[in-house]
Amino acid sequence: MGYKDFTPEEINAVMQDAWKAFHVYRRFSLKQRAGFMKAIAIELENAGDALIQTAMRETHLPEARLRGERARTIFQLNSYADACEKGDWLEARIDTAIPDKTPPKPDIRKMLVPLGPVVVFGASNFPFAYSTAGGDTACAFAAGCPVIVKAHPAHADTSEMVANAVFTAAEKCNMPKGIFAHVHGAGFEVGKALVTHPHTKAVGFTGSYAGGKQLFDWGNQRKEPIPVFAEMGSINPVFLLPEKLKTSASDIATMYAGSITLGVGQFCTNPGLIIGTEGEALQAFIHDLGKAIQQIAPAPMLHQGIVEAYKKNKGNALLQDDVHLVAESESPVHANEGLPTIATASGQAFLNNPVLHQEVFGPYSIVVRCKDMNEMLEVARHIEGQLTATLMATDADITQNTALVEAVKNICGRFILNGVPTGVEVCLSMQHGGPFPASSDSRFTSVGADGIKRFARPIAFQNWSNDLLPDELKNENPLGIWRTVNNELMKTPL
Amino acid sequence: MGYKDFTPEEINAVMQDAWKAFHVYRRFSLKQRAGFMKAIAIELENAGDALIQTAMRETHLPEARLRGERARTIFQLNSYADACEKGDWLEARIDTAIPDKTPPKPDIRKMLVPLGPVVVFGASNFPFAYSTAGGDTACAFAAGCPVIVKAHPAHADTSEMVANAVFTAAEKCNMPKGIFAHVHGAGFEVGKALVTHPHTKAVGFTGSYAGGKQLFDWGNQRKEPIPVFAEMGSINPVFLLPEKLKTSASDIATMYAGSITLGVGQFCTNPGLIIGTEGEALQAFIHDLGKAIQQIAPAPMLHQGIVEAYKKNKGNALLQDDVHLVAESESPVHANEGLPTIATASGQAFLNNPVLHQEVFGPYSIVVRCKDMNEMLEVARHIEGQLTATLMATDADITQNTALVEAVKNICGRFILNGVPTGVEVCLSMQHGGPFPASSDSRFTSVGADGIKRFARPIAFQNWSNDLLPDELKNENPLGIWRTVNNELMKTPL
Repeated sequence: MGYKDFTPEEINAVMQDAWKAFHVYRRFSLKQRAGFMKAIAIELENAGDALIQTAMRETHLPEARLRGERARTIFQLNSYADACEKGDWLEARIDTAIPDKTPPKPDIRKMLVPLGPVVVFGASNFPFAYSTAGGDTACAFAAGCPVIVKAHPAHADTSEMVANAVFTAAEKCNMPKGIFAHVHGAGFEVGKALVTHPHTKAVGFTGSYAGGKQLFDWGNQRKEPIPVFAEMGSINPVFLLPEKLKTSASDIATMYAGSITLGVGQFCTNPGLIIGTEGEALQAFIHDLGKAIQQIAPAPMLHQGIVEAYKKNKGNALLQDDVHLVAESESPVHANEGLPTIATASGQAFLNNPVLHQEVFGPYSIVVRCKDMNEMLEVARHIEGQLTATLMATDADITQNTALVEAVKNICGRFILNGVPTGVEVCLSMQHGGPFPASSDSRFTSVGADGIKRFARPIAFQNWSNDLLPDELKNENPLGIWRTVNNELMKTPL
Repeated sequence: MGYKDFTPEEINAVMQDAWKAFHVYRRFSLKQRAGFMKAIAIELENAGDALIQTAMRETHLPEARLRGERARTIFQLNSYADACEKGDWLEARIDTAIPDKTPPKPDIRKMLVPLGPVVVFGASNFPFAYSTAGGDTACAFAAGCPVIVKAHPAHADTSEMVANAVFTAAEKCNMPKGIFAHVHGAGFEVGKALVTHPHTKAVGFTGSYAGGKQLFDWGNQRKEPIPVFAEMGSINPVFLLPEKLKTSASDIATMYAGSITLGVGQFCTNPGLIIGTEGEALQAFIHDLGKAIQQIAPAPMLHQGIVEAYKKNKGNALLQDDVHLVAESESPVHANEGLPTIATASGQAFLNNPVLHQEVFGPYSIVVRCKDMNEMLEVARHIEGQLTATLMATDADITQNTALVEAVKNICGRFILNGVPTGVEVCLSMQHGGPFPASSDSRFTSVGADGIKRFARPIAFQNWSNDLLPDELKNENPLGIWRTVNNELMKTPL
């Protein structure tokens, strides 16, 4: 606690070091990068119980959750390290020369290379997995970029301990000075100075819309604009289709009471919006969901600012025309806790009121009652970009509602059938990102090894002799990576 | 000639149609998309001599060049159609379920899907290959996006004829109304209305920095920012390394006199900057380059605006401190022609004067004389992002100047050894795009089938049954595409 904001001079010194480190680190082999990432994973483990206890004190998250999150962070570092070394992400392409073409076709070979120093802003709700040595940091190191982390002020001690783990790993792996930096700053000035520094070449962010959009704008307003990948949260709509709802209302209610309140609702994939059509089945679902919510105890939220925002945003939503409270937790609530809450509104109320489209970060969800499937389609078409969207549906529901399925598909990054959106699997097929405002560039993901590509760009080598080419592109394929040679994917040497 | 600017109402109608078409076209199979693209290629051929003659009248480009450019455009459409159907670009990923994991890992499958309607602004210098049915249009159709082309006013008749070829192909292939639109507008208002329309989801542009940056800013300042891929040209630096220059000064001079004046210097890959170190070899090179330039006749430029800009920008460059004229073409020059010109300046003059870093679009290049290799390294480090950079070097030059090689590599999208930057091969390994300001997002290319990815985003399907998944992701792999299944690339069915 009590870290001083970095001064502009200190920030400049950090960025100069990162720039120098970039020119060294980007020439390190995939194996060296992977070794460094795995060393960080080991140091995170070595940080032991002290790290968990510090995080518990700062975030009020329970011990089991934090141990699980650290394990996930270690898994990310190790699995992205494996992906880094495997090299599929490099998109290696080789087109061999055709000297007798008119004009002659030269030998051209392409692969991804790092962008440069990456500034990472961690999330308050994931002190490990989306913070200091989290997904963005791991992806940037894999791509060949130095990382400058702006510590989240709500868990600055935790961040400091994780940063020390990274520094230790960097030393053990003989990384260049400046490969990693850890910067404190409670006000916006430090963040702005980092994003606008000429040596910063990309930004990763996980957090609120207001924060992410500000970084995106700063990045684009620079003399040299840079990519800012901001993951800015979602309301994660869930569509209850008629046949499914009829047969499974009670099961869905149980499943969603759990998902809405998981981690006190403090997930960017929290289902904040549930949409069904009026009728007995929906009434039964609302009843059962309310009953289940009443039984779930409130729990402490991350920090007082989050609790206050939850109360304010939920209160405001409940004040809107035609919005009604369905149920709240019946357990006593303390000042630092989030009270599980379910509300409901009509389809028309939702369509006409943008306030109801906004995220209420916490254990809250609103059930929208559409008068028919046409109105549900209208709702689907009026929702902004989302990280996830879910259909609770039978096969017949799907085939009979093609227009709805297509409309929902068009607004989300991850499309779930008969499940809950909470729980983001770390794997190559994961898409965590979606049409704006879920994220600032829907073409990339912040979870899974494809996230490495956010921080890399292609370069084509034309007419280079085999000896002078990078190993990734040499005829003999010494790294044994997949490459597209004259339009065919292969590992075969040339 | 004499097309009226589209009104805001007409533009809105075009975008509404494109939006409707998007919801139909994006469900079309890869085969159907490829068929449409190949039909456009046939119609371009069918447009016959009349199309070439119209383009000759509007652009003053010679017949052989325009015939070659049409053939290139047809090749692009056909080869991107093949790539579209082959499906490598979809980045299909499958991770199968692990039900006994804690918590259970669901089945997740990911692929790229289209962004939505794409607005394309064509280039004045490529009336076919980078215009109405050029690379951006082909990539967008392959991705599954409708296209709205803003016709370049300098070749509006040519654009109209090409658009008619696209309309004919669309009709023959039963494409939905709105799959393609052709919009005229001489002022900036039409372009702004297209980029800022809520149904526009991406923009492709090839042209000047001023034009591209304006579109980029409009795209980012929207309530819902959209990706704007602007390819904004370059000065394409060429570094003459000492050993190579010593042995080949005369050959390099001949080669570069041709490259500088190819197509009257009207290529975004024109070598506008040549850098060597002071000495006899460089003097000999400058002398030979000057002699060669004197023998090259001026030729008509695209239009009077381009000629005037060339004269003004070249004149301004020649007025700068320590800049000297080396040679001009000795042939008589007409008012509509670009006069081949070579200038020279010292390394210090270049380092201290940003004017000399700016593109002079036309048959002009400046030779910068560095006092030593350290100054050449300084120059390399001070040049902005480039589409291409070239080294003229022996193997020994390369191995003895690692810092220079790395510095040059860091500023370019395509890195050429012992060749000329003019001539952009259409193949998968091509990178046409580079660090800002060469293009607005260095992570993408505008030439080669990887350009399709500019207009697509990943979507992950979680827990969908095999029958309901898109064909690209079904167990049996009915399309026979490459997919990464549980981290391994394969075509094998599951």
